[in-house]
Amino acid sequence: MIIVLGPGTTKDAIEYITKKIEDAGLKPLVSSGVERTVINVIGDERILDKNQFEAIPCVEKIIPILKPYKFASREFKQENTVIKVDGVEIGGNKIVIIAGPCSVEGKEQIIEIAKAVKEKGAGMLRGGAFKPRTSPYAFQGLEEEGLKHLKEAKKEIGLPIVSELMDTKDIELLLEYVDVIQIGARNMQNFSLLKEIGKINKPILLKRGMSATINEFLMAAEYILAGGNQQIILCERGIRTFIDHSRNTLDISGIAVLKELTHLPVISDPSHAGGKAKLVTPLALASIAVGCDGLLVEVHQDPERAFSDGEQSLNLDAFGKLMDEAGKVAEALGRTI
Amino acid sequence: MIIVLGPGTTKDAIEYITKKIEDAGLKPLVSSGVERTVINVIGDERILDKNQFEAIPCVEKIIPILKPYKFASREFKQENTVIKVDGVEIGGNKIVIIAGPCSVEGKEQIIEIAKAVKEKGAGMLRGGAFKPRTSPYAFQGLEEEGLKHLKEAKKEIGLPIVSELMDTKDIELLLEYVDVIQIGARNMQNFSLLKEIGKINKPILLKRGMSATINEFLMAAEYILAGGNQQIILCERGIRTFIDHSRNTLDISGIAVLKELTHLPVISDPSHAGGKAKLVTPLALASIAVGCDGLLVEVHQDPERAFSDGEQSLNLDAFGKLMDEAGKVAEALGRTI
Amino acid sequence: MIIVLGPGTTKDAIEYITKKIEDAGLKPLVSSGVERTVINVIGDERILDKNQFEAIPCVEKIIPILKPYKFASREFKQENTVIKVDGVEIGGNKIVIIAGPCSVEGKEQIIEIAKAVKEKGAGMLRGGAFKPRTSPYAFQGLEEEGLKHLKEAKKEIGLPIVSELMDTKDIELLLEYVDVIQIGARNMQNFSLLKEIGKINKPILLKRGMSATINEFLMAAEYILAGGNQQIILCERGIRTFIDHSRNTLDISGIAVLKELTHLPVISDPSHAGGKAKLVTPLALASIAVGCDGLLVEVHQDPERAFSDGEQSLNLDAFGKLMDEAGKVAEALGRTI
Amino acid sequence: MIIVLGPGTTKDAIEYITKKIEDAGLKPLVSSGVERTVINVIGDERILDKNQFEAIPCVEKIIPILKPYKFASREFKQENTVIKVDGVEIGGNKIVIIAGPCSVEGKEQIIEIAKAVKEKGAGMLRGGAFKPRTSPYAFQGLEEEGLKHLKEAKKEIGLPIVSELMDTKDIELLLEYVDVIQIGARNMQNFSLLKEIGKINKPILLKRGMSATINEFLMAAEYILAGGNQQIILCERGIRTFIDHSRNTLDISGIAVLKELTHLPVISDPSHAGGKAKLVTPLALASIAVGCDGLLVEVHQDPERAFSDGEQSLNLDAFGKLMDEAGKVAEALGRTI
Repeated sequence: MIIVLGPGTTKDAIEYITKKIEDAGLKPLVSSGVERTVINVIGDERILDKNQFEAIPCVEKIIPILKPYKFASREFKQENTVIKVDGVEIGGNKIVIIAGPCSVEGKEQIIEIAKAVKEKGAGMLRGGAFKPRTSPYAFQGLEEEGLKHLKEAKKEIGLPIVSELMDTKDIELLLEYVDVIQIGARNMQNFSLLKEIGKINKPILLKRGMSATINEFLMAAEYILAGGNQQIILCERGIRTFIDHSRNTLDISGIAVLKELTHLPVISDPSHAGGKAKLVTPLALASIAVGCDGLLVEVHQDPERAFSDGEQSLNLDAFGKLMDEAGKVAEALGRTI
Repeated sequence: MIIVLGPGTTKDAIEYITKKIEDAGLKPLVSSGVERTVINVIGDERILDKNQFEAIPCVEKIIPILKPYKFASREFKQENTVIKVDGVEIGGNKIVIIAGPCSVEGKEQIIEIAKAVKEKGAGMLRGGAFKPRTSPYAFQGLEEEGLKHLKEAKKEIGLPIVSELMDTKDIELLLEYVDVIQIGARNMQNFSLLKEIGKINKPILLKRGMSATINEFLMAAEYILAGGNQQIILCERGIRTFIDHSRNTLDISGIAVLKELTHLPVISDPSHAGGKAKLVTPLALASIAVGCDGLLVEVHQDPERAFSDGEQSLNLDAFGKLMDEAGKVAEALGRTI
Repeated sequence: MIIVLGPGTTKDAIEYITKKIEDAGLKPLVSSGVERTVINVIGDERILDKNQFEAIPCVEKIIPILKPYKFASREFKQENTVIKVDGVEIGGNKIVIIAGPCSVEGKEQIIEIAKAVKEKGAGMLRGGAFKPRTSPYAFQGLEEEGLKHLKEAKKEIGLPIVSELMDTKDIELLLEYVDVIQIGARNMQNFSLLKEIGKINKPILLKRGMSATINEFLMAAEYILAGGNQQIILCERGIRTFIDHSRNTLDISGIAVLKELTHLPVISDPSHAGGKAKLVTPLALASIAVGCDGLLVEVHQDPERAFSDGEQSLNLDAFGKLMDEAGKVAEALGRTI
Repeated sequence: MIIVLGPGTTKDAIEYITKKIEDAGLKPLVSSGVERTVINVIGDERILDKNQFEAIPCVEKIIPILKPYKFASREFKQENTVIKVDGVEIGGNKIVIIAGPCSVEGKEQIIEIAKAVKEKGAGMLRGGAFKPRTSPYAFQGLEEEGLKHLKEAKKEIGLPIVSELMDTKDIELLLEYVDVIQIGARNMQNFSLLKEIGKINKPILLKRGMSATINEFLMAAEYILAGGNQQIILCERGIRTFIDHSRNTLDISGIAVLKELTHLPVISDPSHAGGKAKLVTPLALASIAVGCDGLLVEVHQDPERAFSDGEQSLNLDAFGKLMDEAGKVAEALGRTI
């Protein structure tokens, strides 16, 4: 941590601050420049409360040097984490495609889609049973019934299941029915939920909040890791910006930066990022080119009749085309799909 | 709802869409322009699924005409909603100041602050017992113990209590100890939580998410209203933008727009918007000038030793000064404080 | 400047960097922490090229300590700069209102508005002769004819004139006709233009670019100051964010931060920030409450027939009402209008 | 254009508006819904001033239906525009790489880089002679001397030259020395400059402003097209958002959307988007995967000694590696490089 003091800071104030640092067992190193005095804090600064120092009137700014997360960092663990889900590995050389409808709408629907996406090469099946909807009047998901349909689809078709958890009270239910628990963008900083899923033994697919920085995203993962659950898949799904030609702005450089900063697998959700079917394949290819470990794609056998997110769902043909092109780009970069 | 069709849309496609509208009991009105055909939907468009229409290939865009929320709108209820909390009214002519520390740190601390802010004119006491913190390693709040201290402070000093609820499992606890339940910015779209607090009979202070549009904010309120709870105080607390000179960007026009669109009281949180003590009073005055119904202000008797948010907490003197100036601006605009 | 080195940086690399610093006549101070080595640069870091250091592979990040601008800073000049324009002072205790139409549309129009806004208390007249329009097919301004009308209005009514300069080739023209040269938001980083107006002796009203940071805004002012022109009025006019309920997002805290960082007068443009007539007065009052030195307001005698910006122009009655309320808020804070 | 009227709009007001539409030679189509009356305007709405209608009190909102640009649109010209620059074609199947230093620093430097990038497959040489710098104290470019060095490099090595124009007064100079005139992001809405380059016969590389929407970007191109110059290359270079892990946020979906909306070639600048050398290649690959027609890449033989942008410049080896990988991704998608 570096503490920059404003012009005119008194000797007494400097002593007060250095004492505060020493009292915490760290070492302050004062250097007085031409216009500013700067104090370097030597030691593990994470034990200091940055905000307490910022509250001291003469402090101009505080610059943390160490990353605030530990278990999520490449410095803590250099090699890539590979997560195994019922025989499917994510985080390795093979890019994993997780496909399926936004919402589970019925048993036949989910089985039909599961069959189709498996044939085209998907590695896991996604489908929402509990749906976070902006409007209280919109379809809210089939809840436990939906989870049952997903389990049925797995039994028939064999793909591992990814589905979203929205509340701590439903954890047991999800544990019973699904293989990967998804935490949605709106719950990325639902810390009560993060703490609870830190205690379980089930892979987590954690979506980035729509206005989360990379630091905040990794700190959300750190909540889960600190709780003991090491199986986390990070998912970039677009951030909110001023643009209006796509639903969100896929933070394509964020994928590259995440791959550098953390050992956890990083996947991309081109469906929510684009928000329109015709943008999904271009964004999927870009995500693979930039280095993601998987894709989360909304697929529906009849998007015009989808209960939710129809406008951004690929139909089965379009999904097949995505898989073809994604395979070529992956291969060009020495990966498989 | 207006449906704009792309160039070259066939007659068959138009018939398909108009039938879909009629099947829902609404009336389509087709007008063919020079370059585009447009379909107006007459009737309560909220029963249609916008996304299903967007999934039809020839549809270029969909423009909703009606507001997606109902109970939250001024059209539903024209006069201002005034919420009564233990004799304190919010939403009327008097601007209510809710002050107190970010976190409850102990019984003496909270009583000392409660006493001081009451003397200077605050109408309610805020204090966090459950704390949403970016880092799992930061102070997470005293939880039930903190709630007990708040209740003690109320008993001694008499101010109604505002404190944050983070998870559905703690609702009973909050109902027992506090007068207003706060929902934090990170939980604005925690729909499970919104549904549960829609069922209770206790005022809610709902903070705007840091990347929420005004529409999404009012839809979050609509979740609570649709559940039956009509006592909601909306709180603007700054949005996330590219700027870095304040913690967030206070959406000052958002306050004016909310006052126009909804009958619910609207307050401002200059502490989280500014993120620095010296910005709190200027932003508080601007909020009053633009028409807010109250302020939520972080106050601490010793910000340098605060367990959280020290850098943006006012000390007692600074809070006194804020109250003086706020009083003058309120009076200039025909309001009291 | 503080240089943070990545983990595993070699001794040789540290020596290479310290030598580079010493060669520039500055003093490096190396401190090795637990996980990172940090080099403080003592001396006037502004002579170093930050980007050259960032290009060195072992460098993790560079943190400038000194502000990049000099003449614009409060540290260079503590007391407020007061700019005199034909007897009108801006930057002092009196808040100056600059009002008028978006575009000059004719001689009678501008004289009628000038007369009306003067009666209601405006201190200067604004009116565009050269108009920066998003569309090449929109009205582009009356150009020199418009400037002549403005001069005529000044002769008849007596208010000093503010009008926009868009290109270096028109400087002579503007110098002849106007009292304050406005540089629009889209030209805030038109460095050729900034250099030229740095050489003239005429007050400049510099509008903040819609995605400019405060630092970039002050650096744009620094271009003009470094050229020798000390008469600059800074104007906050809203930034671009994800919100869509106002044309731009008035960065209300930016006004407070500017007043702290610079001695130059700071005014607010509630018309462009709000983009709708009904938002102009609330934003004007908030701007005064937060501490601005003036307002730039679009006023038109018949907004429905305005050649440009009709939707955000106040009619004469609404402007009168704004002046009344603005006067009360100013007075409450010990200022006049 | 669709005009949505607020609740309670009178018959007189509707008549007033329909007359205004008819007076402009267009046809109004009124449809009264349950809660709102809507007026469709049939005919070329671009002749109406949207803002004048917005200024009418009963108008709630205006929704344009037609795109505001004409010559830039795919509807105006369906097939891709291919621009020929000294034998190099841009906009066709072959992806063109434009490489070179941020600034021309001397004759030897530019010739050395030109030679190296040509060997590795670049199709054009970039180099700045007039530099838009945030700070007035930073290196501002060699100006005409730099242009001479570029011409010399072309003579020796043979690559066509791209260099930036910052001011109308330098057009003649640029016309003499360069093959493609670049307009920088900060000048995207310098309308005086756009009008002037609309009159010349030289290809233009137009960079997107850092907070420009796609609409505004295409309207800037429309200024040039409307002036008569049809040779425009559009360049996405990242937008400003809240994130701080890259210099800007590459709007990767923007590239796909531009390819759909316009016939003009679209290239990507991964150097300015990423702002760090290690992000350049990942972003370049993503840009190719999403469908761009070319890349603009900063390359320097010794980034640590670059006069500008050293931190985001690739050295020659890194550029060679980029070309190898870019070639593979291009080939996977049926294109060449």
